[in-house]
Amino acid sequence: MEWLDGGVTTPKGFRASAIRSGLKKEGLDLALIECPGEAACAGLFTLNAVKAAPVLVSMDNIRASGGVARAVVVNSGNANACNGPKGLQIARKMAQRCARLLDTSPEKVLVASTGVIGRPLSLEKVLSGVESAVPQLSSSRSAGKKASEAIMTTDSVPKEAALRIRCEDGCITLGGMAKGVGMIHPELATMLAFITTDARIDAESLSKALREAADQSFNMITIDRDTSTNDTLFALSSGLSACPSIHSGQKNFSRFREGITQLCINLAKQMVRDGEGASKIFEVEVTGAENSRDARLCARSIAGSNLVKSAIFGLDPNWGRIIAAAGYSGAKIDQELVGLILETPDGKAMEWVANGRQISERRNTLAEKIMEGSSFKIKVDLGLGCFKATSWGCDLSYDYVRINSEYTS
Amino acid sequence: MEWLDGGVTTPKGFRASAIRSGLKKEGLDLALIECPGEAACAGLFTLNAVKAAPVLVSMDNIRASGGVARAVVVNSGNANACNGPKGLQIARKMAQRCARLLDTSPEKVLVASTGVIGRPLSLEKVLSGVESAVPQLSSSRSAGKKASEAIMTTDSVPKEAALRIRCEDGCITLGGMAKGVGMIHPELATMLAFITTDARIDAESLSKALREAADQSFNMITIDRDTSTNDTLFALSSGLSACPSIHSGQKNFSRFREGITQLCINLAKQMVRDGEGASKIFEVEVTGAENSRDARLCARSIAGSNLVKSAIFGLDPNWGRIIAAAGYSGAKIDQELVGLILETPDGKAMEWVANGRQISERRNTLAEKIMEGSSFKIKVDLGLGCFKATSWGCDLSYDYVRINSEYTS
Repeated sequence: MEWLDGGVTTPKGFRASAIRSGLKKEGLDLALIECPGEAACAGLFTLNAVKAAPVLVSMDNIRASGGVARAVVVNSGNANACNGPKGLQIARKMAQRCARLLDTSPEKVLVASTGVIGRPLSLEKVLSGVESAVPQLSSSRSAGKKASEAIMTTDSVPKEAALRIRCEDGCITLGGMAKGVGMIHPELATMLAFITTDARIDAESLSKALREAADQSFNMITIDRDTSTNDTLFALSSGLSACPSIHSGQKNFSRFREGITQLCINLAKQMVRDGEGASKIFEVEVTGAENSRDARLCARSIAGSNLVKSAIFGLDPNWGRIIAAAGYSGAKIDQELVGLILETPDGKAMEWVANGRQISERRNTLAEKIMEGSSFKIKVDLGLGCFKATSWGCDLSYDYVRINSEYTS
Repeated sequence: MEWLDGGVTTPKGFRASAIRSGLKKEGLDLALIECPGEAACAGLFTLNAVKAAPVLVSMDNIRASGGVARAVVVNSGNANACNGPKGLQIARKMAQRCARLLDTSPEKVLVASTGVIGRPLSLEKVLSGVESAVPQLSSSRSAGKKASEAIMTTDSVPKEAALRIRCEDGCITLGGMAKGVGMIHPELATMLAFITTDARIDAESLSKALREAADQSFNMITIDRDTSTNDTLFALSSGLSACPSIHSGQKNFSRFREGITQLCINLAKQMVRDGEGASKIFEVEVTGAENSRDARLCARSIAGSNLVKSAIFGLDPNWGRIIAAAGYSGAKIDQELVGLILETPDGKAMEWVANGRQISERRNTLAEKIMEGSSFKIKVDLGLGCFKATSWGCDLSYDYVRINSEYTS
C-alpha cells in the first residue's frame, strides 16, 4: 500500500470540477465528481432522524439505480435541511439538471449539501452553478483539489487523500475528499466524504467494504457530539483498474477493504485535526475490552468528553476525567483493573495509571509535557478481554465557542 | 405548598454543622447533617461504572441499616474516587469516626465526597474535621446555610431550598441543599444533594418518592454531558411531623411526592443556573412525543447539545441546531410535524417553526431578543402523541473552557 499526493480524480475514470455559484459569502461553493463510464456506487447516510433533502434524494437514487452513479453534485453554504417539500424539490432538480447536461438519467446523479440548516436554498443559483460546472469537468489533479475546496464550510483546510494497492496485474487506486469540522459525532457516516476508486468491484461488495471502513474511521471521530442532518459518505468505483474484480468473501476483498479503511481513517483524522477551534488531536486506543461494542463505546466516550477535551486544551493532567468518561460510556469496567498510558507520536510511552490508581504524582508533570505536543495517544486498557477500538478527538478551546456562537448571524 | 427561606435544618429533627478541615485551598470543606432521633433514609447514586469510594460505602450502609440513618458526612476538595482499597478504607473510617462520636453504629452514617478524582484523601484531615464538626451540630438556620457552603467546589453560590406542605393535623416540611456545576449529566442521581423532611414516611416509600422526584429534576438537567463518579442524592425523614404517616400507594403519598419533586426541581435549576461558565439558563419543554422515553430523550438531547448551547451564548438564532439535536436524540421524529416556540419567563410566546420550517426570516430577530434574557423556554412540539418532558440546560461559554482547562493545575 502506497500513499499518493492525490484526491478524487487520482483513480482512473473520474473527473471533477468546482465553481462559485454565490451560495457562500465567498469562494468556491459547488463541486461535481463524474465518472464518464458510470460507476458502481455505495452510500452511507446520517442516522439523525431529521435528514436533509439531499440525503433523502440520494438514498432514493441509489435504490432506484441499483447502485450505479454517473455523477455527484455537492454544494456548500446551505444544508438544504428542514426546508420541507420545497427542499426536496430543489434537491431533485439539482440531480435532474446535472443528468440532462450529462445525458444520463436523474437517479444516476447523487446530491449532497452542507451549510446552515433551515434556510431556503436558491434554486436559481444552484442550477446555474451546475450549468457552469459541467463543461469544466476535468480529470486533472487540480480539478480534484478545487472540488475539495468547494465543499468546505468552516473548514480551514481542504481534506484529500489517495493511495494505491498493488495486485499481480497492476494496481488499484483510491482517492477521496472530505469536509466537516463541527457537528461531528457520526452515527454511521459523517458529514461529507467522497471516495473514488478504479477497482473492479460490484456495488454490493463496495457497500460492504465502505460500511466496514466507516466503522473504523468516520464513526470513531467526534468533535462535539452533535450528529449532523446531512452526513453523507459516497464511494464510486469506475472499474478501470487492470486488477481482477473484487467480490466480498473472496481473498482480494480484504485487501481492498483494508485500503479503503486506511483512506477513510486518513480523511477522518484530517477532519478532527481541523476540528472547530481545535489546537491538538488525540487518539484514544482502548484495549482489553470484553467485547467490540464496549471497546468502541469506551473509546468514543473518552474522545467526546467535554471535560477531557477542556483538560487537554489547558494541559491539565486530570486523568480522573478520562477514567470517569470510560465509566459512564456504558462499557463494562472494573475500576480496579484500568490502566492508562500516554504516548507521544514517536512512540515514547509513559505509564500513568495502573489498577485504577495513578502510579505517582510526579507522572503528572510528564503527562503535561506529552500533552504539550500537537498530537498524542491515550491508551486505556480495561483488563477484561481482548477487544480493542481506536477513536480520535480534539481539544475544546475558546475558539470552538467563538466559532459556534457566531455561526449564522 | 409554600416555599420557605430554609435548608436542611428547616424540617423538625435535623441538625447540621460545617468546618474547615484543610482539604480545599480555602473555606469550609466538611459538612455534617444529623438526625438525633434517627431518620428513615433513601439514596440514589451515579450510574457511572466507576463509582467513588464514598458512593460504594454509602450503598453498603443503606443496605446494612435497612434504610436508617443518623448522620451524613460530606467533604469537598477531594472526590475520593479512583483511590483503590485505600480510598474505601478512608470512606469507611469517616463513617466509623462519626458513628463513635455520636454513639451510633457505622452503617447508620452515610458519606459523600466531591472534588478532584484520583488524589489520595488525607485521612488525618478528614477525621480531625469530623472531630471538630460533631460538637458544633446545631438546628439553627445558619448551621444549615454553612453546611450548604461547605459542600461547594467550583460552585459560585450555595444552593438551598425548603417548602411546607399542609395537612389537616399540621404540616410537613422539606429542606434540601445541593452542589454541582460541572460534570453534570446525571444518570439516576446527580452530584451531591441532600433532602431532609420531618414527614412520617417509611424508607421504602421515601425511596420511591425520591426516585420519581429525581427523574423529573436532577435527571433532566445537563451542564456538560459528563456523568460524575460521585453523584449522590440522599433523603432523610425524621418522622417528627404531626401529619399522618405516608405510604406509597396511599392518597397522601402523591402530595408528598409532588412536594419532594418541586424541591428537587428547585435545587436542580439552581445547579444549572450556576453551571460552569453559564450566563443563562434555558428550559426545554418537549410535548407531543409518542411516549415518555422519547419526550425525555429529546428534551435532554436539546439541552445538552454543544451547538445549541454555543448558539445561545452567542445569541445566534440558529433553530436548525435545535431540530438537529431532537433528530439525533433517538426519539421518533417526523420532521414535517415539528413545531418550535420560544417563550420569555413572563409567558410571552413567539412561534418560530411550524411543520419543520421557520415561519418567517424576521422571527429570527425576535428570537435574538428573547435569547438576550437570562432565562427563557424552548417549547418543542413533536406532533406525534401526548407525552411530554422538561429539561434544563445552560449556555456554553468561554468561561466553561477556562474553568475546565485549569481545574487541577
